Amino acid sequence: MKAHVYVTLKSSVLDPQGQTIHNALRKIGYATVEGVRQGKYFVLNLAGGVTSEEARAAVEKIAREVLTNPVIEEFTYRIEE
Amino acid sequence: MKAHVYVTLKSSVLDPQGQTIHNALRKIGYATVEGVRQGKYFVLNLAGGVTSEEARAAVEKIAREVLTNPVIEEFTYRIEE
Repeated sequence: MKAHVYVTLKSSVLDPQGQTIHNALRKIGYATVEGVRQGKYFVLNLAGGVTSEEARAAVEKIAREVLTNPVIEEFTYRIEE
Repeated sequence: MKAHVYVTLKSSVLDPQGQTIHNALRKIGYATVEGVRQGKYFVLNLAGGVTSEEARAAVEKIAREVLTNPVIEEFTYRIEE
């Protein structure tokens, strides 16, 4: 079982990396892109015997306590059976 | 319209960041996690008048040419209408 965790900066937090990518894209001609935000992506491989509820609970705890800085970031996740 | 781009290291490439997170998780007691890989996550805001095919073409080109280092990374993406 795999868990995919997506960590992004809160929308109220400036994202200079995303802004830089956006500027670069504009310079090389991608006018259709109106904004870029960069985040982090984690794939967790979970042990075989875990139920999907246990996985959900563990992943949510890990994402909240280890992978995310709750002051400036938020996360979503997806469990892949 | 939004595009979500997920960039990961190829599975043949070592991921010391993911390994460090995995070790940390083990130390604090998350024995159900058997491996961690870290990647990057980008959200692109696309202009309103773009068709979903144009979006797909642009995002694929951007992901391949700008967001990914094809020697060591690969990407997937998802268009959100």
